[in-house]
Amino acid sequence: MTTQMAREIAEQPDAVARTLDGLRPLRGELHRLAEGTRHILFVARGSSDNACVYGRYLVETHAHRMAGLAAPSVATHYHAEVDLTDALVVCVSQSGETREIVETQEWAAGRGARTVAVTNDGESSLARGADLTLATDAGREFAVPATKTYTTQLAAMAVLATALAPDPTSLDADLARVPEQMSALVERREGVDAAAAQLAKSAETLVSGRGLLFGTALEVALKLEETCLRPVRGLSYADLRHGPIAVVDADVAAIVVAAKDGPVVGGLTEVAADLGRRGATTIGIGGDAAFGAACALSVPGPDLPEMVAPLATVVPGQLMVESLARRLGLDPDAPRGLSKVTQTDAG
Amino acid sequence: MTTQMAREIAEQPDAVARTLDGLRPLRGELHRLAEGTRHILFVARGSSDNACVYGRYLVETHAHRMAGLAAPSVATHYHAEVDLTDALVVCVSQSGETREIVETQEWAAGRGARTVAVTNDGESSLARGADLTLATDAGREFAVPATKTYTTQLAAMAVLATALAPDPTSLDADLARVPEQMSALVERREGVDAAAAQLAKSAETLVSGRGLLFGTALEVALKLEETCLRPVRGLSYADLRHGPIAVVDADVAAIVVAAKDGPVVGGLTEVAADLGRRGATTIGIGGDAAFGAACALSVPGPDLPEMVAPLATVVPGQLMVESLARRLGLDPDAPRGLSKVTQTDAG
Repeated sequence: MTTQMAREIAEQPDAVARTLDGLRPLRGELHRLAEGTRHILFVARGSSDNACVYGRYLVETHAHRMAGLAAPSVATHYHAEVDLTDALVVCVSQSGETREIVETQEWAAGRGARTVAVTNDGESSLARGADLTLATDAGREFAVPATKTYTTQLAAMAVLATALAPDPTSLDADLARVPEQMSALVERREGVDAAAAQLAKSAETLVSGRGLLFGTALEVALKLEETCLRPVRGLSYADLRHGPIAVVDADVAAIVVAAKDGPVVGGLTEVAADLGRRGATTIGIGGDAAFGAACALSVPGPDLPEMVAPLATVVPGQLMVESLARRLGLDPDAPRGLSKVTQTDAG
Repeated sequence: MTTQMAREIAEQPDAVARTLDGLRPLRGELHRLAEGTRHILFVARGSSDNACVYGRYLVETHAHRMAGLAAPSVATHYHAEVDLTDALVVCVSQSGETREIVETQEWAAGRGARTVAVTNDGESSLARGADLTLATDAGREFAVPATKTYTTQLAAMAVLATALAPDPTSLDADLARVPEQMSALVERREGVDAAAAQLAKSAETLVSGRGLLFGTALEVALKLEETCLRPVRGLSYADLRHGPIAVVDADVAAIVVAAKDGPVVGGLTEVAADLGRRGATTIGIGGDAAFGAACALSVPGPDLPEMVAPLATVVPGQLMVESLARRLGLDPDAPRGLSKVTQTDAG
């Protein structure tokens, strides 16, 4: 029996292609809205927050603008009177109805910010309140764990960051190859079930990554945790080395996520080797040949440069989570204790 | 036998008092250095990063300026050409020699930022390279887990944020009470050993907090992990509700950290009750009476308002960690696999 989550994972190539096609024409409007701003501030929770981690790195490394993640309580609880007149505030919520995010957007607008909503519902409260909406075109998502709504948010992040870059089209050829790369990963499932079998045997799991793919590591960790009901930590490899690596031993399965190129894959290869020496079973997703060789199990990623790799590298991670959930006798479509629109208290 | 870590925990009231006295006179210079900047960017790793989380919230909620945490790899690996001419970049490193932080400071200065170093060594590379140094006066720290260097960094954060506030002296009366409050917590140790005994029995640990005390929760989690060699997750309660709460059950000991007042203690009381209903054993640090009543075990915090409470609220957490390490037969002064100056690769 095919799960809803598996079906929605397979729908991602089309959903991302549609979203890119739909949002690319908004680059001019985005560019004009951002004129005179100097700082991009992302606001989100959960999977959407992980999409923003990619957005933040891409804005900084590709568009060369300061970017960061907001602490929503500064708005919703402390009502801080921060001057946001030079900020473009990007609020991301799949439903567009998460109250905390909607309230933070209202606060930001009231403090002088220009606002962009990224949501899968162009008629939602978030969309109605924003200066400009980037509506993702994921279609309706039935499984509780977000998959296609997450990758279409990544597509929106790519459109946003490229709209702010000196040449908005410089990543377009790579972005155009994303859907076919996602499809290949879904069809081949290479290494996915072996990795899930290994995860099923391990008492503890951590997921690490760095830079442009750090958000991917966080998202794989969150999906594993909420779908497979086990505590999983997502850590940047720098933070890992700053303490938590001390607790790594043979009980740990360590997933390391990397792109095939870029300035951090070398360091991630070293960290994978280090984790292996401490006894952890290492599962590599993506990376280059040396990275794959440094991991006990290697799950191929897409053939895409680091700047756009996050859109497809999460796919084997999603497949692994879906496979593990079934293996553990869990329903990946409706994990215990979660609902589709998550509310954290606001106001 | 008293451990070095216990001695250094007890030295904190003096260390914080000295640091506050030493740094308060620099407020005028800090204010002038920050003139014309609009954004405060913190750069750190490990415990220093947790100190910056407090710095970030305090700058936003008390000084009403945009603040955020840098992603060092944007500097050290991606060499992003971000315009930082309107940024005050605050680099925090106990030793002042962590290469990644020193390199990020050099990058920031090269991109037009004004720089402030927070370090316990006023002659370090970080101090020599900064426009202004806030030298913490912790004295030499021998135990590997940072305690007094962490709380003196918090004191530096309080001086920094108040220097940028409309009235730089408005928190001074509360700050002056911090050392005596820390001393009382060290002497009384109320609830500390009972909490450590509970933690020793639990298979999994998580630590949660929010807002101004979120950094305290992260620091207690990191200390538990690196000193007691067990995986511990530090999560904001909002993020906890967005997924990870699904894995909470009777195997979990959940530490929740709160101040006695402020806009988030009510929500943290609800989250403590929720965690308890899911079967977790809840250990509350600080909070008000309702918060204490919602937790299975209550460890009192300081009698200080939320804005300065983090300087002292971490103390019972440190005592708990030191007690747990001894209980587990571990040496709190020299945990496996960690050294005092942590290097993550840079460049």
